[in-house]
Amino acid sequence: MVRTRFCDVFGVEYPIVQGGMQWVGRAGLVSAVANAGGLGFLTALTQPTPEDLAEEIYRCRQLTDKPFGVNLTILPSIKPPPYVEYRDVIIESGVGVVETAGFNPAEHLPAFKAGGVKVLHKCTSVRHAVKAQQLGVDGISIDGFECAGHPGEDDIPGLVLIPAATEKITIPMLASGGLADARGLVAALALGADGINMGTRFVATTEAPVHENVKRRLVEASEHDTDLIFRSLRNTARVARNAVSTEVVSIFDSGGQFDDVRELVAGVRGRKVYEVGDLDLGIWTAGMVQGLIHDIPTVSELIDRIVTEAGELIKGRLGDVLIQK
Amino acid sequence: MVRTRFCDVFGVEYPIVQGGMQWVGRAGLVSAVANAGGLGFLTALTQPTPEDLAEEIYRCRQLTDKPFGVNLTILPSIKPPPYVEYRDVIIESGVGVVETAGFNPAEHLPAFKAGGVKVLHKCTSVRHAVKAQQLGVDGISIDGFECAGHPGEDDIPGLVLIPAATEKITIPMLASGGLADARGLVAALALGADGINMGTRFVATTEAPVHENVKRRLVEASEHDTDLIFRSLRNTARVARNAVSTEVVSIFDSGGQFDDVRELVAGVRGRKVYEVGDLDLGIWTAGMVQGLIHDIPTVSELIDRIVTEAGELIKGRLGDVLIQK
Repeated sequence: MVRTRFCDVFGVEYPIVQGGMQWVGRAGLVSAVANAGGLGFLTALTQPTPEDLAEEIYRCRQLTDKPFGVNLTILPSIKPPPYVEYRDVIIESGVGVVETAGFNPAEHLPAFKAGGVKVLHKCTSVRHAVKAQQLGVDGISIDGFECAGHPGEDDIPGLVLIPAATEKITIPMLASGGLADARGLVAALALGADGINMGTRFVATTEAPVHENVKRRLVEASEHDTDLIFRSLRNTARVARNAVSTEVVSIFDSGGQFDDVRELVAGVRGRKVYEVGDLDLGIWTAGMVQGLIHDIPTVSELIDRIVTEAGELIKGRLGDVLIQK
Repeated sequence: MVRTRFCDVFGVEYPIVQGGMQWVGRAGLVSAVANAGGLGFLTALTQPTPEDLAEEIYRCRQLTDKPFGVNLTILPSIKPPPYVEYRDVIIESGVGVVETAGFNPAEHLPAFKAGGVKVLHKCTSVRHAVKAQQLGVDGISIDGFECAGHPGEDDIPGLVLIPAATEKITIPMLASGGLADARGLVAALALGADGINMGTRFVATTEAPVHENVKRRLVEASEHDTDLIFRSLRNTARVARNAVSTEVVSIFDSGGQFDDVRELVAGVRGRKVYEVGDLDLGIWTAGMVQGLIHDIPTVSELIDRIVTEAGELIKGRLGDVLIQK
């Protein structure tokens, strides 16, 4: 079994986190992660209103008596959701942990702190991690170029980003992006992280609220089957390669602008992919790590397997390379 | 101390390799790596003629009685060097190991095999690694997106590429790209590799035959200070970001062609950077891992430190996360 200081600070059994994922981070998955000893995050903006989020938190509480959190991601938006109201629901619900992402947490941090909510801030560069640490967050999740969703614009993969960050981050830090199994967990720990945050891997589990076709595609797809879109807007997103992503890339390559792809990438179409299982209906996210995903276990099987195999890897394979001289 | 099956197959003490580097892989550096227990590679094409390579091999033999190898990289070229003659020098010299790169090794493999030369093939994708294994090479060096020089066009970082490759590669395999220290070695071993191949890290050593300014720049630079050039030519190279690389990127971004940058990137100018220490004189290579390089040790200090700290990391930090349940 595997335990780090992340577990002590965030009150969980294993240093394994299911980070926020739009349309996926719902009570069924999050409670399964909690019950298996990990830390799962509901995704605030998956709920259409702050009231719906309050209800989803309530539902999750019915399914587990272990800690879980809520992700609050703030991204550039033409018509922003009521972030403050979502934030206040998180605080008032008594959920003990929030995962912030996509923005400098300064604006919302005092409210979270006053409400006794621990803040795990997800970011994609060492300078943002250092800034968040200075602001007083409780943990960092550092997200490499491999990741699904928003890798930032620096393109630094975890193999370099994780050790570079640990040289400046003294609070508990998770590695995120490109991680799916015990090999990734042990590598992340070796590179200096205190645990791992996984997204794509949790989508390919029994409890993930997405259509079976999505899960099967993750199993079938290789590490090559992702696309980066919106690079020219400096709002890069890594998504599953499909008919829509290919068209979007092609439109931008020909000098197109956001208005030319607005309809193609509308969030409702991405949600429909998860609901109806037509993989080419819209943009949906997947990380390169899909190339390492070969099955669709239950969350409990997945987490048990990772911690068990991590122990075997450390004591077995790594122990065996050490020789007396 | 650290030992894997790579050491047995290639006859060296530690699974740490100094891979081929144009203008850098010369007898002084390579013999220092050999004497410290690693496997160093002379770079064949750094020598103006096959006869010069034969002399460099001879010089290296005067400096060490331990095994070393020669790198033979074949890249797209308007006026190709006499590859077959270089190859035959490698075979006839009695050097026991060659690092092939940049091309499918099929054409030259029979000659190497017949000459008793072990072949370590460096490539940037799982499919090329599988192909080389089928052809009968003795080892693979799998090179991630982070790397200096030629990362290929797939952009798969080591955190995903290494485990993806180990699922299909059964012969000894090194991880390459983004690695500079014990953290990287242990991470690579955890991900399934049998050792590491480093380039940039060895440039910042006492024995590397490059100007002190280059070494100091590697220490000062961060992981962000590299550029990818020649992407539109599908011959991508990761180089140190400087005035020239910035200009080259800008010319290509404006629709420029190779002819427009030919003078800027002429190899002789890159060589001059190393010789005279004017860092903006031409294109020179550096990997993202420069962000993890903070000193200029001797090769012996570097290798000793890596193997010692790797042992401490496995027994200490990783051992400590294991708890009884």
